[in-house]
Amino acid sequence: MRGVALDICPDATLADITHDISPQDILGGALELAAAYKYFPQGTVFLCVVDPGVGSSRRGIAADAGGRRFVAPDNGLLTEVFRDATPSVVVELTERKYARPTVSRTFEGRDRFAPAAAWLAKGIAITALGAEVTDWRSLDIPEPHEGGGQLTGEVLRVDRFGNLVTNIDRERLVRVAASRPIQIVVAGQPVTKFVATYAEAENGSLCALFGSSDHLEIAVAGGSAAGCLGLTRGAAVVVRFDAFP
Amino acid sequence: MRGVALDICPDATLADITHDISPQDILGGALELAAAYKYFPQGTVFLCVVDPGVGSSRRGIAADAGGRRFVAPDNGLLTEVFRDATPSVVVELTERKYARPTVSRTFEGRDRFAPAAAWLAKGIAITALGAEVTDWRSLDIPEPHEGGGQLTGEVLRVDRFGNLVTNIDRERLVRVAASRPIQIVVAGQPVTKFVATYAEAENGSLCALFGSSDHLEIAVAGGSAAGCLGLTRGAAVVVRFDAFP
Amino acid sequence: MRGVALDICPDATLADITHDISPQDILGGALELAAAYKYFPQGTVFLCVVDPGVGSSRRGIAADAGGRRFVAPDNGLLTEVFRDATPSVVVELTERKYARPTVSRTFEGRDRFAPAAAWLAKGIAITALGAEVTDWRSLDIPEPHEGGGQLTGEVLRVDRFGNLVTNIDRERLVRVAASRPIQIVVAGQPVTKFVATYAEAENGSLCALFGSSDHLEIAVAGGSAAGCLGLTRGAAVVVRFDAFP
Repeated sequence: MRGVALDICPDATLADITHDISPQDILGGALELAAAYKYFPQGTVFLCVVDPGVGSSRRGIAADAGGRRFVAPDNGLLTEVFRDATPSVVVELTERKYARPTVSRTFEGRDRFAPAAAWLAKGIAITALGAEVTDWRSLDIPEPHEGGGQLTGEVLRVDRFGNLVTNIDRERLVRVAASRPIQIVVAGQPVTKFVATYAEAENGSLCALFGSSDHLEIAVAGGSAAGCLGLTRGAAVVVRFDAFP
Repeated sequence: MRGVALDICPDATLADITHDISPQDILGGALELAAAYKYFPQGTVFLCVVDPGVGSSRRGIAADAGGRRFVAPDNGLLTEVFRDATPSVVVELTERKYARPTVSRTFEGRDRFAPAAAWLAKGIAITALGAEVTDWRSLDIPEPHEGGGQLTGEVLRVDRFGNLVTNIDRERLVRVAASRPIQIVVAGQPVTKFVATYAEAENGSLCALFGSSDHLEIAVAGGSAAGCLGLTRGAAVVVRFDAFP
Repeated sequence: MRGVALDICPDATLADITHDISPQDILGGALELAAAYKYFPQGTVFLCVVDPGVGSSRRGIAADAGGRRFVAPDNGLLTEVFRDATPSVVVELTERKYARPTVSRTFEGRDRFAPAAAWLAKGIAITALGAEVTDWRSLDIPEPHEGGGQLTGEVLRVDRFGNLVTNIDRERLVRVAASRPIQIVVAGQPVTKFVATYAEAENGSLCALFGSSDHLEIAVAGGSAAGCLGLTRGAAVVVRFDAFP
């Protein structure tokens, strides 16, 4: 993919976001992308390929959102970016002249998405890539819900330090916690220390904090919460705000 | 190696092909390189270092093949590239002024190959690096063979998704399968589904297809064939074309 | 971090040194950095983030040393670079206008260090980042010691091939070994073969040599010494030079 991009747009600056998305993990890719994209320069083109449906009838799309451009399979990979920044235009990748002459059924990243991204970087209008569409696919990303005296969220992402990043954002937690005590419980275990950063907790101890994308995070200072608790994506994280002992 | 290259040729664009070659795995490097090189721009310089014989009497070489340049230890790492594109010239790296003043016996990648590649990128002629040679080393890469009513190949490469990429290319399989039924068998197990892409197989099911470099590949849709079957490089993949029940 | 850097300094050439430092491993980062930095061009800016104390009161610093610039948390990450090249100036990162408007307590790499590094690459004077300091932190890196007829060192680093890189440098070993026989012992096992490079030892056999940064290294030719011996950082490596049988 890097070769194809540089062949079309030799002046492109290539930068990798991560090498750690697991095979087929669309949600993982969607979250990492959303956490990173807004720190890149306006006009950046993001070439996004987590693509278990490669070669099937699922479409390829290009989008303009938040002042950046995105090329991706239409499988929900852009869900979180679009939630953060409504796209001004989304097109289907149908224009053959912006793909490689032969498109492999098992590697459209190389033959279709990389060329489209490189052509965007080279300056073509996004609408040159194909006709506008409005029915792109979105992932059904779990939302936290309130009820029974508690806010129930879950772990969406485990970062490379083993921190458990939840779907509970700062705004929501602050609202819930306003003027009453709360208790955070993960895997049945209360998290008694709420800190501003990892180093405020004793080494090896469990703590909660707001991470770098302003979501509630469960961590073990100097260690791995995922490892210590044996938890991964989907694990429930509960914020009790009513009548706990 | 990146530092040395940039010190000599500050304008170079650096792009990594993969971070996943196992230590000492010359064949793995040779196959990945051959799968990738032709997608990079004409004139690209490939700095190739999988080098268990570092510091020994094995030579360093530079080659011009397929419109690109290659710098590598002379240990067969360029075998597959040369099979794909006959080199127009191969030289031995003997010219001391295109190496670092001191050459470590354990890291020629840094002290000899990176400088040579950077000087090529900077524009010197390949023949400035040393005298032409014609007796470069090649790996003995297993070829499929026909006999006893079957075509017998093997797994050459396991990609990061766990797909088993064989040494049987499309042309050969199509010829064998012409006008008669075939049966693909891997590790004693028949592969009953032949698909055009992963998504055509039911999730978790075993299938066969032609991968992105047009070789027969054994896959598990949405999973890892290597993991499910417990197989790795060298595993036999048989295409029976005669008199099977 | 890459996005932030490119947003400030779009012409920067980005190059990664390694993706293999373990979380929180300041010493590992310090050693890899010291092994690599001097091969990069004069003027290179190194953005160095291994930062278990992120968001705490530990300072951020920028330094000019050996003709290169470094931005890092003040936690000892630059210890080995500074031992190799005395810094001409070290400043604390206090100037708010060279950080992002909001600085996360859990990701200063993105919000404080990446901007500072990018501004340096863009050309500002290092002293614009903050006031000079002289009391930066250093790691207490174990030194080999002589006594009882032997030189006792230890493994500081395990490279990706499983080689055990010690804290005994060539100069010291050569001095100790002058005019008398020596015996190298690791984990109670004598290392009988001293070689100039891996390929001189029989495949699978234990050997000692000087590695690419001129330190004594214990290796298994074609294999992993760390794996074969079950050793990691901190393991004792003894050079007996007196009265051994």
